[in-house]
Amino acid sequence: MDIKGPSFEILSIGNELLIGKTLNTNGQWLARQITLLGGLCVRMTVIRDDLEEISRAFKEVLERSPRFLIASGGLGPTYDDMTVEGLSKALGRPLKLHEEALSWIAQKYGDLYRRGLTKDPKLTPQRMKMALLPLGAKPLRNPVGAAPGVLLEADSTKIICLPGVPEELKAIFEESVKEEITRGVGGYYFVESRFTVENMGESTLAPIIEETVRRYSPLVYVKSHPKDRSPNITVEFHLTAQGRDKELLEEKVNEAVSYLKENIRRLGGKIVDLG
Amino acid sequence: MDIKGPSFEILSIGNELLIGKTLNTNGQWLARQITLLGGLCVRMTVIRDDLEEISRAFKEVLERSPRFLIASGGLGPTYDDMTVEGLSKALGRPLKLHEEALSWIAQKYGDLYRRGLTKDPKLTPQRMKMALLPLGAKPLRNPVGAAPGVLLEADSTKIICLPGVPEELKAIFEESVKEEITRGVGGYYFVESRFTVENMGESTLAPIIEETVRRYSPLVYVKSHPKDRSPNITVEFHLTAQGRDKELLEEKVNEAVSYLKENIRRLGGKIVDLG
Repeated sequence: MDIKGPSFEILSIGNELLIGKTLNTNGQWLARQITLLGGLCVRMTVIRDDLEEISRAFKEVLERSPRFLIASGGLGPTYDDMTVEGLSKALGRPLKLHEEALSWIAQKYGDLYRRGLTKDPKLTPQRMKMALLPLGAKPLRNPVGAAPGVLLEADSTKIICLPGVPEELKAIFEESVKEEITRGVGGYYFVESRFTVENMGESTLAPIIEETVRRYSPLVYVKSHPKDRSPNITVEFHLTAQGRDKELLEEKVNEAVSYLKENIRRLGGKIVDLG
Repeated sequence: MDIKGPSFEILSIGNELLIGKTLNTNGQWLARQITLLGGLCVRMTVIRDDLEEISRAFKEVLERSPRFLIASGGLGPTYDDMTVEGLSKALGRPLKLHEEALSWIAQKYGDLYRRGLTKDPKLTPQRMKMALLPLGAKPLRNPVGAAPGVLLEADSTKIICLPGVPEELKAIFEESVKEEITRGVGGYYFVESRFTVENMGESTLAPIIEETVRRYSPLVYVKSHPKDRSPNITVEFHLTAQGRDKELLEEKVNEAVSYLKENIRRLGGKIVDLG
Protein backbone atom coordinates (compact mmCIF):
# COMPACT_ATOMS: atom_id res chain seq x y z
CA MET A 1 0.00 0.00 0.00
CA ASP A 2 1.10 3.49 -0.86
CA ILE A 3 1.44 5.14 2.51
CA LYS A 4 3.97 7.84 1.98
CA GLY A 5 3.33 11.10 0.20
CA PRO A 6 6.01 12.76 -1.93
CA SER A 7 9.03 13.79 0.13
CA PHE A 8 9.83 17.36 1.16
CA GLU A 9 12.84 18.93 2.78
CA ILE A 10 12.93 22.32 4.48
CA LEU A 11 16.06 24.45 4.56
CA SER A 12 15.96 27.31 7.08
CA ILE A 13 18.68 29.92 6.64
CA GLY A 14 19.68 32.48 9.27
CA ASN A 15 22.19 32.96 12.09
CA GLU A 16 19.35 34.12 14.35
CA LEU A 17 18.03 30.54 14.38
CA LEU A 18 21.41 29.12 15.43
CA ILE A 19 22.21 31.60 18.19
CA GLY A 20 18.82 30.84 19.74
CA LYS A 21 17.52 34.35 19.16
CA THR A 22 14.60 33.27 17.00
CA LEU A 23 12.33 30.26 17.30
CA ASN A 24 11.95 28.53 13.92
CA THR A 25 8.23 29.19 13.57
CA ASN A 26 8.61 29.36 9.78
CA GLY A 27 9.92 25.80 9.75
CA GLN A 28 7.01 24.55 11.84
CA TRP A 29 4.45 26.45 9.77
CA LEU A 30 5.87 25.08 6.52
CA ALA A 31 6.03 21.53 7.91
CA ARG A 32 2.39 21.79 8.98
CA GLN A 33 1.22 23.12 5.59
CA ILE A 34 3.18 20.46 3.70
CA THR A 35 1.76 17.71 5.92
CA LEU A 36 -1.83 18.94 5.58
CA LEU A 37 -1.38 19.07 1.80
CA GLY A 38 -0.38 15.38 1.85
CA GLY A 39 3.40 15.77 1.58
CA LEU A 40 5.91 13.92 3.74
CA CYS A 41 8.41 16.26 5.36
CA VAL A 42 11.51 14.10 5.89
CA ARG A 43 14.06 16.60 7.06
CA MET A 44 14.56 20.19 8.18
CA THR A 45 18.05 21.69 8.10
CA VAL A 46 18.95 24.99 9.74
CA ILE A 47 22.14 26.71 8.60
CA ARG A 48 23.95 30.01 9.04
CA ASP A 49 24.22 32.96 6.64
CA ASP A 50 27.37 31.65 5.05
CA LEU A 51 27.70 31.36 1.29
CA GLU A 52 29.76 28.14 1.31
CA GLU A 53 27.48 26.53 3.85
CA ILE A 54 24.31 27.53 1.96
CA SER A 55 25.68 26.16 -1.29
CA ARG A 56 26.83 22.93 0.41
CA ALA A 57 23.47 22.43 2.12
CA PHE A 58 21.56 22.92 -1.15
CA LYS A 59 23.81 20.34 -2.81
CA GLU A 60 23.35 17.85 0.03
CA VAL A 61 19.56 18.16 -0.06
CA LEU A 62 19.49 17.81 -3.86
CA GLU A 63 21.59 14.63 -3.64
CA ARG A 64 18.81 13.11 -1.53
CA SER A 65 16.34 14.02 -4.35
CA PRO A 66 13.24 15.10 -2.43
CA ARG A 67 10.29 16.03 -4.63
CA PHE A 68 10.27 19.53 -3.09
CA LEU A 69 12.85 21.62 -1.30
CA ILE A 70 11.43 24.66 0.49
CA ALA A 71 14.04 27.16 1.66
CA SER A 72 13.31 30.15 3.85
CA GLY A 73 15.34 33.24 4.74
CA GLY A 74 18.11 35.22 3.08
CA LEU A 75 16.22 36.78 0.15
CA GLY A 76 16.45 40.40 1.26
CA PRO A 77 18.57 43.37 0.16
CA THR A 78 21.41 43.24 2.70
CA TYR A 79 24.94 41.86 2.39
CA ASP A 80 24.17 38.68 4.31
CA ASP A 81 21.09 37.74 2.29
CA MET A 82 22.74 35.16 0.07
CA THR A 83 20.34 32.29 -0.37
CA VAL A 84 19.93 32.84 -4.10
CA GLU A 85 23.67 33.20 -4.62
CA GLY A 86 24.23 29.98 -2.66
CA LEU A 87 21.63 28.22 -4.79
CA SER A 88 23.21 29.53 -7.99
CA LYS A 89 26.58 28.20 -6.81
CA ALA A 90 25.13 24.82 -5.84
CA LEU A 91 23.46 24.38 -9.23
CA GLY A 92 26.20 25.93 -11.33
CA ARG A 93 23.58 28.22 -12.86
CA PRO A 94 24.63 31.88 -13.13
CA LEU A 95 22.55 34.70 -11.68
CA LYS A 96 20.71 36.86 -14.15
CA LEU A 97 18.62 39.99 -13.65
CA HIS A 98 15.00 38.92 -14.06
CA GLU A 99 13.02 41.68 -15.77
CA GLU A 100 9.62 40.78 -14.34
CA ALA A 101 11.02 40.48 -10.80
CA LEU A 102 12.72 43.85 -11.26
CA SER A 103 9.50 45.48 -12.38
CA TRP A 104 7.71 44.14 -9.27
CA ILE A 105 10.45 45.55 -7.06
CA ALA A 106 10.35 48.92 -8.83
CA GLN A 107 6.59 48.99 -8.39
CA LYS A 108 6.90 48.10 -4.69
CA TYR A 109 9.32 50.93 -3.90
CA GLY A 110 7.32 53.33 -6.05
CA ASP A 111 4.30 52.45 -4.00
CA LEU A 112 6.19 52.82 -0.66
CA TYR A 113 7.43 56.21 -1.87
CA ARG A 114 3.93 57.41 -2.72
CA ARG A 115 2.76 56.30 0.74
CA GLY A 116 5.64 58.19 2.38
CA LEU A 117 7.23 54.97 3.65
CA THR A 118 10.53 55.38 1.82
CA LYS A 119 12.43 58.54 1.04
CA ASP A 120 13.59 57.41 -2.35
CA PRO A 121 12.05 54.94 -4.82
CA LYS A 122 15.34 54.53 -6.69
CA LEU A 123 16.46 51.03 -7.70
CA THR A 124 19.71 50.91 -5.73
CA PRO A 125 22.10 47.97 -6.21
CA GLN A 126 20.76 46.46 -2.97
CA ARG A 127 17.19 46.60 -4.26
CA MET A 128 18.15 45.31 -7.71
CA LYS A 129 19.94 42.37 -6.07
CA MET A 130 16.55 40.91 -5.18
CA ALA A 131 15.79 40.50 -8.91
CA LEU A 132 18.93 38.43 -9.53
CA LEU A 133 17.76 34.86 -10.05
CA PRO A 134 19.54 31.70 -11.19
CA LEU A 135 19.05 31.04 -14.90
CA GLY A 136 15.73 29.30 -15.49
CA ALA A 137 14.16 30.41 -12.20
CA LYS A 138 10.71 31.91 -11.97
CA PRO A 139 10.00 34.71 -9.47
CA LEU A 140 6.99 34.38 -7.16
CA ARG A 141 5.14 37.60 -6.43
CA ASN A 142 5.48 38.88 -2.85
CA PRO A 143 2.16 40.50 -1.90
CA VAL A 144 3.62 41.89 1.36
CA GLY A 145 7.29 42.81 0.97
CA ALA A 146 9.80 43.52 -1.75
CA ALA A 147 11.78 40.29 -2.20
CA PRO A 148 10.10 37.89 -4.64
CA GLY A 149 10.10 34.17 -3.91
CA VAL A 150 11.98 31.89 -6.29
CA LEU A 151 10.81 28.72 -8.04
CA LEU A 152 13.25 26.48 -9.84
CA GLU A 153 13.48 22.88 -11.01
CA ALA A 154 16.67 20.86 -10.71
CA ASP A 155 16.55 17.23 -11.81
CA SER A 156 13.61 15.73 -9.98
CA THR A 157 13.37 18.40 -7.26
CA LYS A 158 11.23 21.54 -7.25
CA ILE A 159 13.08 24.21 -5.30
CA ILE A 160 11.13 27.05 -3.73
CA CYS A 161 12.84 29.89 -1.86
CA LEU A 162 10.78 32.12 0.43
CA PRO A 163 11.69 35.20 2.50
CA GLY A 164 12.27 34.78 6.24
CA VAL A 165 9.79 37.47 7.32
CA PRO A 166 6.85 35.27 8.39
CA GLU A 167 4.13 37.46 6.88
CA GLU A 168 5.92 37.47 3.51
CA LEU A 169 6.64 33.74 3.61
CA LYS A 170 3.01 32.97 4.35
CA ALA A 171 1.65 35.36 1.74
CA ILE A 172 3.79 33.92 -1.07
CA PHE A 173 2.98 30.41 0.10
CA GLU A 174 -0.75 31.06 -0.01
CA GLU A 175 -0.65 32.86 -3.34
CA SER A 176 1.76 30.66 -5.32
CA VAL A 177 3.24 27.71 -3.45
CA LYS A 178 0.14 25.94 -2.17
CA GLU A 179 -1.15 25.26 -5.66
CA GLU A 180 2.29 24.12 -6.81
CA ILE A 181 2.49 21.63 -3.93
CA THR A 182 -1.08 20.41 -4.36
CA ARG A 183 -0.32 19.67 -8.01
CA GLY A 184 2.97 17.99 -7.12
CA VAL A 185 1.54 15.90 -4.29
CA GLY A 186 -1.46 14.75 -6.31
CA GLY A 187 -4.06 13.11 -4.09
CA TYR A 188 -2.32 12.17 -0.86
CA TYR A 189 -4.07 12.74 2.41
CA PHE A 190 -3.09 13.12 6.05
CA VAL A 191 -5.37 12.05 8.88
CA GLU A 192 -4.74 12.49 12.61
CA SER A 193 -6.38 11.98 15.98
CA ARG A 194 -5.22 12.63 19.50
CA PHE A 195 -6.13 12.08 23.14
CA THR A 196 -4.43 12.16 26.51
CA VAL A 197 -3.94 9.63 29.31
CA GLU A 198 -3.72 11.37 32.64
CA ASN A 199 -2.61 8.86 35.22
CA MET A 200 -0.15 6.53 33.55
CA GLY A 201 3.48 6.75 32.44
CA GLU A 202 4.79 5.96 28.99
CA SER A 203 6.61 2.80 30.08
CA THR A 204 3.39 1.36 31.52
CA LEU A 205 1.61 2.11 28.26
CA ALA A 206 4.42 0.81 26.04
CA PRO A 207 3.16 -2.83 25.72
CA ILE A 208 -0.31 -1.62 24.63
CA ILE A 209 1.30 0.76 22.15
CA GLU A 210 3.40 -2.09 20.76
CA GLU A 211 0.34 -4.30 20.29
CA THR A 212 -1.52 -1.45 18.54
CA VAL A 213 1.47 -0.92 16.27
CA ARG A 214 1.54 -4.66 15.48
CA ARG A 215 -2.11 -4.45 14.44
CA TYR A 216 -2.27 -1.12 12.60
CA SER A 217 1.25 -0.37 11.37
CA PRO A 218 2.49 0.70 8.88
CA LEU A 219 -0.76 2.42 7.83
CA VAL A 220 -1.31 4.07 11.21
CA TYR A 221 1.58 5.66 13.09
CA VAL A 222 1.17 5.68 16.87
CA LYS A 223 3.15 8.32 18.70
CA SER A 224 3.15 8.91 22.46
CA HIS A 225 4.38 12.15 24.00
CA PRO A 226 5.10 12.19 27.73
CA LYS A 227 4.16 15.55 29.22
CA ASP A 228 5.56 16.72 32.46
CA ARG A 229 2.55 17.89 34.44
CA SER A 230 3.75 17.14 37.93
CA PRO A 231 2.62 15.46 40.03
CA ASN A 232 0.35 13.79 37.46
CA ILE A 233 2.00 11.76 34.76
CA THR A 234 0.39 12.60 31.44
CA VAL A 235 0.94 11.03 28.04
CA GLU A 236 -0.48 12.50 24.86
CA PHE A 237 -1.28 10.11 22.03
CA HIS A 238 -1.13 11.29 18.46
CA LEU A 239 -2.15 8.86 15.73
CA THR A 240 -1.47 9.75 12.13
CA ALA A 241 -1.88 8.13 8.72
CA GLN A 242 -0.98 9.15 5.23
CA GLY A 243 -2.13 7.69 1.93
CA ARG A 244 -4.37 7.98 -1.10
CA ASP A 245 -7.63 6.61 0.32
CA LYS A 246 -8.86 9.17 2.81
CA GLU A 247 -11.85 7.13 4.01
CA LEU A 248 -9.68 4.11 4.69
CA LEU A 249 -7.19 6.27 6.59
CA GLU A 250 -9.95 7.71 8.77
CA GLU A 251 -11.43 4.28 9.39
CA LYS A 252 -8.10 2.75 10.40
CA VAL A 253 -7.06 5.68 12.60
CA ASN A 254 -10.44 5.49 14.37
CA GLU A 255 -10.09 1.74 14.85
CA ALA A 256 -6.58 2.12 16.27
CA VAL A 257 -7.75 4.91 18.61
CA SER A 258 -10.64 2.72 19.86
CA TYR A 259 -8.34 -0.23 20.34
CA LEU A 260 -5.87 1.87 22.31
CA LYS A 261 -8.50 3.55 24.49
CA GLU A 262 -10.23 0.27 25.29
CA ASN A 263 -7.00 -1.35 26.43
CA ILE A 264 -5.80 1.70 28.33
CA ARG A 265 -9.13 1.91 30.18
CA ARG A 266 -8.90 -1.80 30.99
CA LEU A 267 -5.53 -1.05 32.64
CA GLY A 268 -7.15 1.73 34.69
CA GLY A 269 -6.04 4.64 32.50
CA LYS A 270 -7.98 7.91 32.57
CA ILE A 271 -8.56 9.19 29.05
CA VAL A 272 -9.21 12.82 28.13
CA ASP A 273 -10.21 13.69 24.59
CA LEU A 274 -8.50 16.63 22.96
CA GLY A 275 -10.01 19.03 20.47
CA MET B 1 42.13 36.80 15.37
CA ASP B 2 40.32 33.85 16.87
CA ILE B 3 36.70 34.79 16.41
CA LYS B 4 34.91 31.49 16.24
CA GLY B 5 34.21 29.31 19.24
CA PRO B 6 34.27 25.51 18.95
CA SER B 7 31.60 24.23 16.58
CA PHE B 8 28.39 22.55 17.68
CA GLU B 9 25.68 20.73 15.79
CA ILE B 10 22.19 19.99 17.07
CA LEU B 11 20.23 16.93 15.95
CA SER B 12 16.52 17.04 16.80
CA ILE B 13 14.70 13.73 16.44
CA GLY B 14 10.93 13.34 16.26
CA ASN B 15 8.13 13.06 13.70
CA GLU B 16 6.15 15.65 15.67
CA LEU B 17 8.67 18.30 14.57
CA LEU B 18 8.28 17.38 10.89
CA ILE B 19 4.50 17.22 10.77
CA GLY B 20 4.40 20.70 12.29
CA LYS B 21 2.72 19.49 15.48
CA THR B 22 5.50 20.70 17.77
CA LEU B 23 7.61 23.84 17.60
CA ASN B 24 11.30 23.00 18.07
CA THR B 25 11.71 24.91 21.32
CA ASN B 26 14.35 22.39 22.49
CA GLY B 27 16.48 23.26 19.47
CA GLN B 28 16.22 26.98 20.17
CA TRP B 29 16.92 26.54 23.88
CA LEU B 30 19.99 24.41 23.18
CA ALA B 31 21.27 26.85 20.54
CA ARG B 32 20.89 29.71 23.01
CA GLN B 33 22.70 27.88 25.82
CA ILE B 34 25.52 26.82 23.50
CA THR B 35 25.91 30.37 22.19
CA LEU B 36 25.93 31.91 25.67
CA LEU B 37 28.57 29.38 26.73
CA GLY B 38 30.78 30.57 23.85
CA GLY B 39 30.12 27.75 21.37
CA LEU B 40 29.34 28.27 17.70
CA CYS B 41 26.23 26.41 16.64
CA VAL B 42 26.74 25.76 12.92
CA ARG B 43 23.84 23.53 12.04
CA MET B 44 20.59 22.09 13.34
CA THR B 45 19.11 19.03 11.66
CA VAL B 46 15.60 17.76 12.31
CA ILE B 47 14.80 14.18 11.34
CA ARG B 48 12.02 11.61 11.77
CA ASP B 49 11.84 8.62 14.10
CA ASP B 50 13.36 6.27 11.57
CA LEU B 51 16.30 4.06 12.48
CA GLU B 52 18.05 4.29 9.11
CA GLU B 53 17.58 8.05 8.98
CA ILE B 54 18.83 8.54 12.54
CA SER B 55 21.92 6.45 11.88
CA ARG B 56 22.58 8.27 8.57
CA ALA B 57 22.18 11.69 10.18
CA PHE B 58 24.59 10.82 13.02
CA LYS B 59 27.15 9.67 10.44
CA GLU B 60 26.74 12.81 8.35
CA VAL B 61 27.22 15.08 11.37
CA LEU B 62 30.27 13.13 12.55
CA GLU B 63 31.85 13.42 9.10
CA ARG B 64 31.73 17.21 9.54
CA SER B 65 33.61 16.76 12.86
CA PRO B 66 31.97 19.36 15.11
CA ARG B 67 33.47 19.55 18.59
CA PHE B 68 30.04 18.74 20.08
CA LEU B 69 26.93 17.06 18.74
CA ILE B 70 23.86 17.52 20.93
CA ALA B 71 20.94 15.26 20.02
CA SER B 72 17.47 15.53 21.52
CA GLY B 73 14.48 13.19 21.50
CA GLY B 74 13.96 9.46 21.17
CA LEU B 75 15.43 8.24 24.47
CA GLY B 76 12.19 6.96 26.02
CA PRO B 77 10.74 3.47 26.55
CA THR B 78 8.47 3.14 23.48
CA TYR B 79 9.04 1.32 20.19
CA ASP B 80 9.82 4.48 18.25
CA ASP B 81 12.42 5.81 20.70
CA MET B 82 15.49 4.73 18.75
CA THR B 83 18.08 7.47 19.02
CA VAL B 84 20.55 5.31 20.95
CA GLU B 85 20.09 2.38 18.58
CA GLY B 86 20.67 4.72 15.63
CA LEU B 87 23.80 6.08 17.27
CA SER B 88 25.07 2.55 17.98
CA LYS B 89 24.53 1.67 14.32
CA ALA B 90 26.25 4.85 13.10
CA LEU B 91 29.32 4.20 15.26
CA GLY B 92 29.41 0.44 14.85
CA ARG B 93 29.47 0.13 18.64
CA PRO B 94 27.10 -2.51 20.07
CA LEU B 95 24.51 -1.68 22.72
CA LYS B 96 25.23 -2.98 26.20
CA LEU B 97 23.14 -2.85 29.36
CA HIS B 98 24.72 -0.20 31.57
CA GLU B 99 24.49 -1.25 35.22
CA GLU B 100 24.58 2.24 36.71
CA ALA B 101 21.93 3.50 34.29
CA LEU B 102 19.79 0.48 35.10
CA SER B 103 20.07 1.14 38.83
CA TRP B 104 18.93 4.77 38.29
CA ILE B 105 15.94 3.54 36.30
CA ALA B 106 15.05 0.93 38.93
CA GLN B 107 15.29 3.61 41.61
CA LYS B 108 13.07 5.96 39.59
CA TYR B 109 10.25 3.44 39.13
CA GLY B 110 10.59 2.32 42.76
CA ASP B 111 10.14 5.92 43.76
CA LEU B 112 7.13 6.42 41.42
CA TYR B 113 5.60 3.24 42.87
CA ARG B 114 5.98 4.45 46.44
CA ARG B 115 4.34 7.74 45.49
CA GLY B 116 1.45 5.88 43.85
CA LEU B 117 2.37 7.15 40.38
CA THR B 118 2.92 3.77 38.80
CA LYS B 119 1.12 0.49 39.51
CA ASP B 120 4.19 -1.66 39.18
CA PRO B 121 7.87 -0.85 39.75
CA LYS B 122 9.00 -3.88 37.72
CA LEU B 123 11.86 -3.46 35.24
CA THR B 124 9.98 -4.38 32.09
CA PRO B 125 11.87 -4.78 28.79
CA GLN B 126 10.67 -1.29 27.78
CA ARG B 127 12.12 0.23 30.96
CA MET B 128 15.36 -1.74 30.71
CA LYS B 129 15.77 -0.53 27.12
CA MET B 130 16.60 2.93 28.48
CA ALA B 131 19.75 1.48 30.10
CA LEU B 132 21.06 0.08 26.81
CA LEU B 133 23.98 2.32 25.79
CA PRO B 134 26.61 2.04 23.06
CA LEU B 135 29.85 0.54 24.35
CA GLY B 136 31.96 3.23 26.01
CA ALA B 137 29.05 5.61 26.64
CA LYS B 138 28.45 7.27 29.98
CA PRO B 139 24.87 7.78 31.24
CA LEU B 140 23.86 11.24 32.47
CA ARG B 141 21.50 11.29 35.43
CA ASN B 142 17.95 12.49 34.68
CA PRO B 143 16.73 14.42 37.75
CA VAL B 144 13.18 14.66 36.32
CA GLY B 145 12.28 11.59 34.27
CA ALA B 146 13.43 8.03 33.76
CA ALA B 147 15.55 8.06 30.61
CA PRO B 148 19.20 8.92 31.31
CA GLY B 149 21.10 11.17 28.92
CA VAL B 150 24.04 9.71 27.04
CA LEU B 151 27.60 11.03 26.69
CA LEU B 152 30.01 9.49 24.22
CA GLU B 153 33.19 10.45 22.40
CA ALA B 154 33.78 9.52 18.79
CA ASP B 155 36.99 10.76 17.16
CA SER B 156 37.09 14.47 17.86
CA THR B 157 33.37 14.87 18.61
CA LYS B 158 31.65 14.74 21.96
CA ILE B 159 28.16 13.34 21.46
CA ILE B 160 25.45 14.12 23.99
CA CYS B 161 21.93 12.68 23.71
CA LEU B 162 19.12 14.24 25.73
CA PRO B 163 15.42 13.32 26.09
CA GLY B 164 12.83 15.29 24.12
CA VAL B 165 10.68 16.22 27.14
CA PRO B 166 11.79 19.84 27.67
CA GLU B 167 11.91 19.67 31.48
CA GLU B 168 14.11 16.56 31.34
CA LEU B 169 16.36 17.98 28.62
CA LYS B 170 16.90 21.16 30.60
CA ALA B 171 17.49 19.36 33.90
CA ILE B 172 20.16 17.05 32.46
CA PHE B 173 21.72 19.99 30.63
CA GLU B 174 21.97 22.05 33.81
CA GLU B 175 23.24 19.17 35.93
CA SER B 176 25.76 17.55 33.58
CA VAL B 177 26.07 19.10 30.13
CA LYS B 178 26.77 22.74 30.96
CA GLU B 179 30.01 21.90 32.72
CA GLU B 180 31.07 19.54 29.93
CA ILE B 181 30.52 22.30 27.36
CA THR B 182 32.21 25.00 29.44
CA ARG B 183 35.28 22.76 29.74
CA GLY B 184 35.18 21.93 26.01
CA VAL B 185 34.69 25.53 24.88
CA GLY B 186 37.42 26.89 27.13
CA GLY B 187 37.25 30.66 27.35
CA TYR B 188 35.21 31.85 24.39
CA TYR B 189 32.66 34.58 24.86
CA PHE B 190 29.58 35.86 23.09
CA VAL B 191 28.54 39.50 23.18
CA GLU B 192 25.39 41.01 21.65
CA SER B 193 23.50 44.28 21.39
CA ARG B 194 20.28 45.22 19.68
CA PHE B 195 18.10 48.16 18.76
CA THR B 196 15.27 48.96 16.37
CA VAL B 197 14.79 51.50 13.59
CA GLU B 198 11.16 52.40 13.26
CA ASN B 199 10.72 54.40 10.09
CA MET B 200 13.08 52.99 7.51
CA GLY B 201 13.19 49.88 5.34
CA GLU B 202 16.04 47.42 5.13
CA SER B 203 17.02 48.40 1.59
CA THR B 204 17.41 52.05 2.64
CA LEU B 205 19.61 50.96 5.52
CA ALA B 206 21.65 48.50 3.46
CA PRO B 207 24.47 50.92 2.42
CA ILE B 208 25.03 51.98 6.07
CA ILE B 209 25.06 48.32 7.10
CA GLU B 210 27.62 47.55 4.41
CA GLU B 211 29.88 50.37 5.56
CA THR B 212 29.62 49.18 9.18
CA VAL B 213 30.48 45.66 8.07
CA ARG B 214 33.50 46.99 6.15
CA ARG B 215 34.71 48.67 9.33
CA TYR B 216 33.91 46.09 12.00
CA SER B 217 33.77 42.72 10.25
CA PRO B 218 34.72 39.94 10.86
CA LEU B 219 34.86 40.62 14.60
CA VAL B 220 31.39 42.12 14.77
CA TYR B 221 28.52 40.53 12.88
CA VAL B 222 25.75 42.94 11.88
CA LYS B 223 22.37 41.40 11.30
CA SER B 224 19.20 43.27 10.32
CA HIS B 225 15.75 41.75 10.74
CA PRO B 226 12.86 43.42 8.93
CA LYS B 227 9.71 43.22 11.04
CA ASP B 228 6.33 43.59 9.51
CA ARG B 229 4.57 46.12 11.72
CA SER B 230 2.32 47.72 9.17
CA PRO B 231 2.01 50.49 8.33
CA ASN B 232 5.35 51.31 9.96
CA ILE B 233 8.43 49.71 8.51
CA THR B 234 10.58 48.42 11.35
CA VAL B 235 14.04 46.88 11.23
CA GLU B 236 15.66 45.25 14.23
CA PHE B 237 19.44 45.34 14.44
CA HIS B 238 21.28 42.61 16.26
CA LEU B 239 25.05 42.89 16.56
CA THR B 240 27.03 39.94 17.83
CA ALA B 241 30.65 39.04 18.39
CA GLN B 242 32.44 35.95 19.54
CA GLY B 243 36.01 35.51 20.69
CA ARG B 244 38.44 35.09 23.57
CA ASP B 245 38.78 38.72 24.69
CA LYS B 246 35.47 39.69 26.23
CA GLU B 247 36.39 43.34 26.83
CA LEU B 248 37.51 43.80 23.26
CA LEU B 249 34.29 42.21 22.00
CA GLU B 250 32.18 44.56 24.11
CA GLU B 251 34.20 47.57 23.01
CA LYS B 252 33.92 46.73 19.32
CA VAL B 253 30.23 45.87 19.45
CA ASN B 254 29.58 49.19 21.23
CA GLU B 255 31.61 51.08 18.65
CA ALA B 256 29.77 49.42 15.78
CA VAL B 257 26.41 50.17 17.43
CA SER B 258 27.36 53.83 17.87
CA TYR B 259 28.57 54.07 14.29
CA LEU B 260 25.34 52.55 12.98
CA LYS B 261 23.06 54.69 15.14
CA GLU B 262 24.88 57.89 14.25
CA ASN B 263 24.59 57.24 10.54
CA ILE B 264 21.00 56.04 10.73
CA ARG B 265 20.02 59.20 12.67
CA ARG B 266 21.81 61.33 10.09
CA LEU B 267 19.57 59.71 7.46
CA GLY B 268 16.49 60.56 9.54
CA GLY B 269 16.03 57.17 11.15
CA LYS B 270 14.13 56.86 14.43
CA ILE B 271 16.00 54.58 16.84
CA VAL B 272 14.40 52.69 19.71
CA ASP B 273 16.61 50.87 22.18
CA LEU B 274 15.63 47.38 23.18
CA GLY B 275 16.16 45.75 26.55
